[in-house]
Amino acid sequence: MKRKALVVLSGGQDSTTCLFWATDKFGRENVCAIGFDYGQRHKKELECAAAICADEGIQYEVIPTPIINALSANALTREDIPVDKEKPEGTPPNTLVEGRNLLFLSYAAIYAKTHGITDLVTGVCETDFSGYPDCRDVFIKSLNVTLNLAMDYNFVIHTPLMWLNKSETWELADKLGVLETIYRRTLTCYNGIIGEGCGSCPACFLRKRGYDEYMERKNNV
Amino acid sequence: MKRKALVVLSGGQDSTTCLFWATDKFGRENVCAIGFDYGQRHKKELECAAAICADEGIQYEVIPTPIINALSANALTREDIPVDKEKPEGTPPNTLVEGRNLLFLSYAAIYAKTHGITDLVTGVCETDFSGYPDCRDVFIKSLNVTLNLAMDYNFVIHTPLMWLNKSETWELADKLGVLETIYRRTLTCYNGIIGEGCGSCPACFLRKRGYDEYMERKNNV
Repeated sequence: MKRKALVVLSGGQDSTTCLFWATDKFGRENVCAIGFDYGQRHKKELECAAAICADEGIQYEVIPTPIINALSANALTREDIPVDKEKPEGTPPNTLVEGRNLLFLSYAAIYAKTHGITDLVTGVCETDFSGYPDCRDVFIKSLNVTLNLAMDYNFVIHTPLMWLNKSETWELADKLGVLETIYRRTLTCYNGIIGEGCGSCPACFLRKRGYDEYMERKNNV
Repeated sequence: MKRKALVVLSGGQDSTTCLFWATDKFGRENVCAIGFDYGQRHKKELECAAAICADEGIQYEVIPTPIINALSANALTREDIPVDKEKPEGTPPNTLVEGRNLLFLSYAAIYAKTHGITDLVTGVCETDFSGYPDCRDVFIKSLNVTLNLAMDYNFVIHTPLMWLNKSETWELADKLGVLETIYRRTLTCYNGIIGEGCGSCPACFLRKRGYDEYMERKNNV
């Protein structure tokens, strides 16, 4: 049986790297992608995702999910809450959208089953775990069992970045031949600047540090 | 610590019985309820729920979830699909809303954590299991673990009806002193008739058979 894969694609570095990981593994013709408009600060990230999918000939559907904003308040979806630059030790950052990956992957699973797709791909990553409990590997494995029981279906959740740090994620993009695409065309910055970003928010800091580390490793080989 | 409970309340027999089970167990002042407007055929069920909560002084919030209808098509949410009277052996009924309890309980959990509530109450029932995989006890237990991992929180999901048949659910309502309320003021009928129902749809058939069985048992004691 030819397996088909659905990528949860936000338009950021991680999920876009996963998109190319999936086309490499499953074949471009067997990959489609889904995104969620949940009132995030920068809908531009969805436009980044849509543009890349259009160029690659990959079907991309964006599902409106205002409920995520309705259920809990946080700095990613509420303009009146500023993003913390620093956070108290041991607490999750105030960009936490409670249950976000739980809902995204549940929606993706329902959508996938409806379209005869078994394989789900997500860019969650425990290595860069910064207090988001739903990025942990144990959560993803538990969710995989729960989804299979919920719908009596054999989903397989793939998390190609789970144990990579940001530098290794850049390395993966390079191996897949898409380093430039990821660098120039994805949005990670909390201030909404595509590509290099603002350079000062926490997301830009992590992204740049990983990139520099990878380039140093690469150039020293 | 005083525990608080959130009841997933649709306005049908099962969830309304659970509402009174929860007020009996936790105390009325520690119970609130949540419902979902997902494009079901009969929104009247939500009005039934709201009316009962208003009389009991219980806070009831209805969350719009059009996404459930957007992700999969079925007879409960689409007027152009008639409800099957009979179904092929071994297949779920075409009233199946894929992943419905998965989403309802995930939403309830996010809402509960936001409000400092740990205990979730749902009327799902494996005994009357008619092909809905997300009514099974093993699914609920798996979901409980997944939710706790997703949000790093100690949810406890209660399923007071899990192993009761419909006759025993009527018995529970009677013991809780709300047999009349459940009989007259809840909506189970697929044709939208509150209380006794149309008498001919599968939901009315099961409800009435359970009621008659319980009455016979009660009167023979």
